[in-house]
Amino acid sequence: MAEKIVWINGREQNQLSVFDRGLAYGHGVFETILFRSRKLQLLDLHLQRLEQGLQCLGIEYSLELIQEELERLILNHPALPNGIVKIIITAGDSERGYAWPQPMQSTRILIWSQYDDAQAAQLKQQGAHLLLSSVRLAHQPLLAGIKHLNRLEQILIRREVEQHQCDEALVLDSNEHVIEANSANIFMVHQGQISTPQLHLCGVAGVMRRYLLETFLPFLDFYAEEKIISLSELYQADEVFLTNSIWGVVAAVRLKRANNEAISWSSGSITQKIQQALLRQEV
Amino acid sequence: MAEKIVWINGREQNQLSVFDRGLAYGHGVFETILFRSRKLQLLDLHLQRLEQGLQCLGIEYSLELIQEELERLILNHPALPNGIVKIIITAGDSERGYAWPQPMQSTRILIWSQYDDAQAAQLKQQGAHLLLSSVRLAHQPLLAGIKHLNRLEQILIRREVEQHQCDEALVLDSNEHVIEANSANIFMVHQGQISTPQLHLCGVAGVMRRYLLETFLPFLDFYAEEKIISLSELYQADEVFLTNSIWGVVAAVRLKRANNEAISWSSGSITQKIQQALLRQEV
Repeated sequence: MAEKIVWINGREQNQLSVFDRGLAYGHGVFETILFRSRKLQLLDLHLQRLEQGLQCLGIEYSLELIQEELERLILNHPALPNGIVKIIITAGDSERGYAWPQPMQSTRILIWSQYDDAQAAQLKQQGAHLLLSSVRLAHQPLLAGIKHLNRLEQILIRREVEQHQCDEALVLDSNEHVIEANSANIFMVHQGQISTPQLHLCGVAGVMRRYLLETFLPFLDFYAEEKIISLSELYQADEVFLTNSIWGVVAAVRLKRANNEAISWSSGSITQKIQQALLRQEV
Repeated sequence: MAEKIVWINGREQNQLSVFDRGLAYGHGVFETILFRSRKLQLLDLHLQRLEQGLQCLGIEYSLELIQEELERLILNHPALPNGIVKIIITAGDSERGYAWPQPMQSTRILIWSQYDDAQAAQLKQQGAHLLLSSVRLAHQPLLAGIKHLNRLEQILIRREVEQHQCDEALVLDSNEHVIEANSANIFMVHQGQISTPQLHLCGVAGVMRRYLLETFLPFLDFYAEEKIISLSELYQADEVFLTNSIWGVVAAVRLKRANNEAISWSSGSITQKIQQALLRQEV
């Protein structure tokens, strides 16, 4: 296993109570944050989404405590290399059954993992090959957007991606609308216009997606919109790119369909411009 | 906490690796089995559903090993009282990310819990008061029926049930069809005909539900069918009852709706006949 440092409720340990509701029901949320140059990248946006998820799932929390433990973990390891910090917050232990624990004592898990960015560098250079997944995301507006621990759809999609030896998936919902990749969001460029799918029915609203939409694309004088995107619109796109907190921006250059037909997109000038501007900037 | 005995991979312990995919993604399944008179009730049906879930989620397993550990746990505790045995099987530890572990070493968790059946006895006597939940179950045919660890919908529904001080929920899907209760299946009786919702799009196919449909109702000379059931059909039912492995059969006698209107069903003769026959029989 890659090198790791794990804190549970502020103490270095990597064993968790088997009665935790994170295990029993996925009653929790997580964040995956790039740690580079001793800085947690886009931390404020990550903490905002974490908080939104915790409120959605009724989990009691102290954002100050989470932030304090993040800072202490980094301070305690002055030579901590670049890597990935995962935060998991669950509803803590409870009795058998769905009944909510009273009082709730939530569990805070911080995991720093070594991260080799060679794969991301290769993806950025070559562009990602997508598989059109056969899995359709279910519509659950009460859970859409948040990064909760119920990820079986992503597990099933990942199996397909590995079977087809692709880098990532293109995932549709039960209306056959484009939603996202499996561990990244998706943007398309058509005639200079940038758009990304609406995520009010399903999907994860990525932090990098939000940063691009609200801050970085306007900063580069691009306008981008959220909208419903059909598969045929995506086929006709000039450029398609993926975003997440770890990769930043990666061009999608090829889509493999179930019938083994494939379509291609160019890793075009707009994607490259955004990608390179993002690399230059400390976010 | 109620008294418990926990085995993880055959050893008595109650701490689990924080890298387990059961925690990270809910990549696992569970069963909740009634232990009565030193016997795991309906064990074969529980193991069949467990196996179906494990195959659906691509988790490697040895059913012989699970059975052997169940037997050994009971033999090692000759005075083990009546209670509930929960089995959780997960895809085991893995690296960060959705990538499937190669090789997979699944985790086997057995939890015996003390169980006070006073609440179930009271429910059986008085009948259950249901809340019509505002949560609509999402359609995911790839996961329908199995008892996996992604249970956030049930967590949200349970919160409503507690807020309204009801015993259980009546849960519909996104088509407004009747699907189940929150931790039980649902049956209706109309003009002597028994029916229960189809579960090919969502819901958990309970072991007690299957036992009634395939074995026990025919044994009592009742015919029961799975079908699509609308809310208005349920309103017009003569009797409604809930089933799960722990309670057996419980009459639903009242349904509270969001507008605080309520409708009532009688705890009628057919429900009582099934309930009493089930109590007499060692299943």
